[in-house]
Amino acid sequence: MNDSRVLGAHSDKGVAQMANAIRALAMDAVQKANSGHPGMPMGMAEIAVALWSRHLSHNPANPRWANRDRFVLSNGHGSMLQYALLHLTGYDLPIEELVKFRQMHSRTPGHPEHGLTPGVETTTGPLGQGFANAVGMALAEKLLAAEFNRPGFGIVDHRTWVFLGDGCLMEGISHEAASLAGTWQLGKLVAIYDDNGISIDGEVEHWFTDDTAQRFRAYGWNVIGPVDGHDVEALDHAIAKSKGSDKPTLIVAKTIIGKGSPNRAGTEKAHGEALGESEIVATRDAMGWPHEPFVVPQDVYAAWDARRAGAEREFAWKKLLNAYAERYPQEAGELERRLGTALPGAYRSTLDAALASAAEKREAVATRKASQLALEALAPALPEMLGGSADLTGSNLTKWSKAAAMRPNALNGRHINYGVREFGMCAIANGVSLHGGFLPFAGTFLVFSDYARNALRMAALMKQRVVFVFTHDSIGLGEDGPTHQAVEHVASLRLIPNMDVWRPADTAETLVAWAAAIERTDGPTSLALSRQAVPFTPRDVDAAAIRRGAYVISEAAGGAKKARAALIATGSEVSLAIEAQKALAAQGVAVRVVSMPSTTVFDRQDAAYKSSVLPEGLPRVAIEAGVTDFWWKYVRATGAVLGVDSFGESAPAPAVYKHFGLTVDNVVATVSAVIAKGNK
Amino acid sequence: MNDSRVLGAHSDKGVAQMANAIRALAMDAVQKANSGHPGMPMGMAEIAVALWSRHLSHNPANPRWANRDRFVLSNGHGSMLQYALLHLTGYDLPIEELVKFRQMHSRTPGHPEHGLTPGVETTTGPLGQGFANAVGMALAEKLLAAEFNRPGFGIVDHRTWVFLGDGCLMEGISHEAASLAGTWQLGKLVAIYDDNGISIDGEVEHWFTDDTAQRFRAYGWNVIGPVDGHDVEALDHAIAKSKGSDKPTLIVAKTIIGKGSPNRAGTEKAHGEALGESEIVATRDAMGWPHEPFVVPQDVYAAWDARRAGAEREFAWKKLLNAYAERYPQEAGELERRLGTALPGAYRSTLDAALASAAEKREAVATRKASQLALEALAPALPEMLGGSADLTGSNLTKWSKAAAMRPNALNGRHINYGVREFGMCAIANGVSLHGGFLPFAGTFLVFSDYARNALRMAALMKQRVVFVFTHDSIGLGEDGPTHQAVEHVASLRLIPNMDVWRPADTAETLVAWAAAIERTDGPTSLALSRQAVPFTPRDVDAAAIRRGAYVISEAAGGAKKARAALIATGSEVSLAIEAQKALAAQGVAVRVVSMPSTTVFDRQDAAYKSSVLPEGLPRVAIEAGVTDFWWKYVRATGAVLGVDSFGESAPAPAVYKHFGLTVDNVVATVSAVIAKGNK
Repeated sequence: MNDSRVLGAHSDKGVAQMANAIRALAMDAVQKANSGHPGMPMGMAEIAVALWSRHLSHNPANPRWANRDRFVLSNGHGSMLQYALLHLTGYDLPIEELVKFRQMHSRTPGHPEHGLTPGVETTTGPLGQGFANAVGMALAEKLLAAEFNRPGFGIVDHRTWVFLGDGCLMEGISHEAASLAGTWQLGKLVAIYDDNGISIDGEVEHWFTDDTAQRFRAYGWNVIGPVDGHDVEALDHAIAKSKGSDKPTLIVAKTIIGKGSPNRAGTEKAHGEALGESEIVATRDAMGWPHEPFVVPQDVYAAWDARRAGAEREFAWKKLLNAYAERYPQEAGELERRLGTALPGAYRSTLDAALASAAEKREAVATRKASQLALEALAPALPEMLGGSADLTGSNLTKWSKAAAMRPNALNGRHINYGVREFGMCAIANGVSLHGGFLPFAGTFLVFSDYARNALRMAALMKQRVVFVFTHDSIGLGEDGPTHQAVEHVASLRLIPNMDVWRPADTAETLVAWAAAIERTDGPTSLALSRQAVPFTPRDVDAAAIRRGAYVISEAAGGAKKARAALIATGSEVSLAIEAQKALAAQGVAVRVVSMPSTTVFDRQDAAYKSSVLPEGLPRVAIEAGVTDFWWKYVRATGAVLGVDSFGESAPAPAVYKHFGLTVDNVVATVSAVIAKGNK
Repeated sequence: MNDSRVLGAHSDKGVAQMANAIRALAMDAVQKANSGHPGMPMGMAEIAVALWSRHLSHNPANPRWANRDRFVLSNGHGSMLQYALLHLTGYDLPIEELVKFRQMHSRTPGHPEHGLTPGVETTTGPLGQGFANAVGMALAEKLLAAEFNRPGFGIVDHRTWVFLGDGCLMEGISHEAASLAGTWQLGKLVAIYDDNGISIDGEVEHWFTDDTAQRFRAYGWNVIGPVDGHDVEALDHAIAKSKGSDKPTLIVAKTIIGKGSPNRAGTEKAHGEALGESEIVATRDAMGWPHEPFVVPQDVYAAWDARRAGAEREFAWKKLLNAYAERYPQEAGELERRLGTALPGAYRSTLDAALASAAEKREAVATRKASQLALEALAPALPEMLGGSADLTGSNLTKWSKAAAMRPNALNGRHINYGVREFGMCAIANGVSLHGGFLPFAGTFLVFSDYARNALRMAALMKQRVVFVFTHDSIGLGEDGPTHQAVEHVASLRLIPNMDVWRPADTAETLVAWAAAIERTDGPTSLALSRQAVPFTPRDVDAAAIRRGAYVISEAAGGAKKARAALIATGSEVSLAIEAQKALAAQGVAVRVVSMPSTTVFDRQDAAYKSSVLPEGLPRVAIEAGVTDFWWKYVRATGAVLGVDSFGESAPAPAVYKHFGLTVDNVVATVSAVIAKGNK
């Protein structure tokens, strides 16, 4: 379909020069930056030629074309491979950007960053996660296709390709993601394994002796190879063969890291540093690539150029989409909405009704149950909701009654049993979000956010709308004991840049937290939810106040001016603060109670609002069933923080709360001491 | 060797009643607590009989007998299985403790806790980690045996047994740990897989379709089974067979969760809640177990009693040890020392010499290099050092020149190439520490502490002396960009209870940090180390001051009374603070510089010392190339914090520091503003 290009791409010399263009750009950019990883791009150059010039369905002019194949470089340290490919095939990534590799404000950072460089589908570098993201993308494609395609209208019909290396395969997350991909029968997912036998420490035979092909067969994958990773025809054939499978495919490609470099190829020296001037000269010579750095001959550009073929592909798809829209206007409209971030028209009224209902019902339930009530109310108006749990569905309460379980033979299911795979789950949810079409959320116990922590970070870094539902959020989970009681986790999640964290106090705050998470378009949200029941707190303010992250939930007796201290609390400790407020009032001490379900959101409010909630000079006492360090940010010198600075205890929750001094008596005593100190 | 017991254990009825004793204790304890997991103990009862009454080499009277077999319950939610076994075989765990299951201050918490209950080798519950701990224990045994055993003297010669379930096997860490166990050929490690087909969400066939046997064969394991997990003779035979293997063994045992319960067996309902009174009656009836709750007939106790056999085992070993000590007195003395926590006599003088040398040489190197220099100096005096890196050996600089690489055929190696397996590495290091004989440490980039975070938490919870070497600790790593630049991690590690965190500023502080980590006997230490070179800061104080976690590294010009502010800095920012101090002095503004390499250690100092370093009323400005939230604890209302509250940037380190305002000019301006504000 693109004869001039295909001609070049099929002649031996053409193929060799296409691959060498990648090698030259990679080694020259790394040399110029004096930083980076030449070995992988040089070793995977022929694989890149085979996939990108013969199979990848994309359109360089429109990196956001909905039906493009997704390409993920899970071994992201080889970023120059991707930059070279994007540049050579015609994306908006001019050679000047490659010259600025790894420099401030370039579009060619050390590792590929989604949102920064056109054509980069996900941010990679933390090994194994790109692979899991790809599983999420392939899952999203499969579910979206099942929902929207109609006979003769394969509107959603693309593949997901992922390059990965030994590092990705050593990481535990590769196990979780591969296992799920096999179970889900993601036939349009193809992983190509850069089996070069080398990792940073040297020859992997000393620390990586897995039979990877056998391992993937055990997951129900289709395994092809080993094939010669420098034989474009063999690779072409293997890739073509992968397309017939209804299982995900792993192509094992035997390669030589740093291939082309006479003295570094096949060694770990090729991996992560510039080749050096003299070796670059030798490599140019050996490859027959006499061109200056960053100079690519026009015939090589022409052979790589994917713009015409890409435009034709998207045009053909658009024609199909138009026909689909005529025949299925409602589906077409909904698909268009789903692929963006607009919420459905019914969302707002549904939310308002739910808020009114919560205020009226005043239910005293655990906030994890409140979260499920929020899902029951909102999810029917949000067909994009795609929930799940890491084998704690009945505890996390992530499943709503209308959601069926997603199975390979039940693709209309909108709740996913991820199994006990927290990291894989969260990275897969990131991939679903990156693909588009769904609003993924994922549940586990808060303490096990640890297992997934770097995926949470990646969601925040990539600004993805993913909701992490973390239940059993404190010592309040009781008997399961210190291994399961989150102590440092709420504070620790708040430290991740761009992660919004909500720890709501009751049904009303939980609904608002969900609404904030759903409406957020520039990042993920973590919900910290109680295992134990909490009372509903009647309040005068509306949802808009809650949405600001902190607000006066209960004013001091006699009004703001009478307040002698502010009690700041979150989640399950808000009711404790309210009880203490009453006890103090009985002693004639008026205090204000501030509910602060989201410190991260409150921090974004203007100074006037902040000081209206926490006036300067009013002593503050913070209460949260977790580590206290974090709270000095709000409490400052004159106040006190009540929390839990050690690991928890295995016992019924009320006994544990008492053990740690999270009692009305202790709050009263602490507030009194703070006020007395201020009066000195 | 214990005929009365073995007789009972080999008759069909005896075996059945031994297993039913476990079932009854488990279901009754869970019922009494109205909380817990009866299904696993009831399902693994026969497996427990086979292993504990016929193969496990232990001595209930001495749970710390050095050559005992290690038993790990990786599926730790089934804690009642372990408590029942410890009680029945004669450990100091009376029936009263089982009655207090999951109550405050009992020795029977919700999940097994090392250090609390005699015979519990590791704290489990967070799935997969017990398995990885067991790999560490088996590794420690293998290395210690190779080091200390002599012909005819198998002084170190025991097995490591681990029970695990579907949950452990779904977790990614099982991949990392199993892969390394296979590579290391840990033939004395035997895992028994409770293959009951059920996890919390229900029948695992919907989310766990792996062929686990094939998967483990791909790791180089010896796989036995499936065997009938309720047939003690078949299990006995499988366990006996495992002993001949020089590969680690996985025994796949098909079981029925909750076996014995007529209505809940084989369903997820049996997993995590009490059976309920009526079902317990039905179960008693079905099992033929008419005894009251917590009553075990004397003949069943007698069949289980392992005290005499255990005493004989340890006695025989002690005889061997005495003969060994006569023949190899030096080795015997050293082995005894190594199995405790005492440091060698030469350690103190070696450290003092290293400190003197560092002070004299004043080397300006990266603190990761300083860490390697510390290892070069100290490790030769500490044969217990067992280092490693997750495939970043040349970057983390965890290898010292005298350390060979550990290989199955080079067991004298004391540096481990863990491959790209951060979580597995850290949990294995925990297992090595739990075993005894070594001081394990493990390296990766600080940002990838995320991957291992729950293992760090478990080290802290278990009070293990493990050192985590986290290099490339900030935006100072430069070009690799935001995916690799730790921003929230130092602060976040400090939030883990009982985790000591050091971020040293130069060679002297790095040595002290290592010394503190080595000498600590009640918990782990994380070292946050720079990629980039830092200057050496001459100071008047000695190492004892550094050991207090914070100290005045450079007093204000004119003395303490002239100080108008205190600059608090850590690690690579200490030199920035010192430069700013000079610039401010040039403007006539005297400020004190406080180096605070360890906030966690400083927090443990007495109030007098703390206020001598940070006097009340002296405005404070904290500088750390990471999130600022944490620092308000020290800075309070009147100060300022300079840091990085967003993700980093890919560029050379100096450019990134400038981008985030971590410059002398900005520090000077900030301090001036703080002082001006205080003067108002």
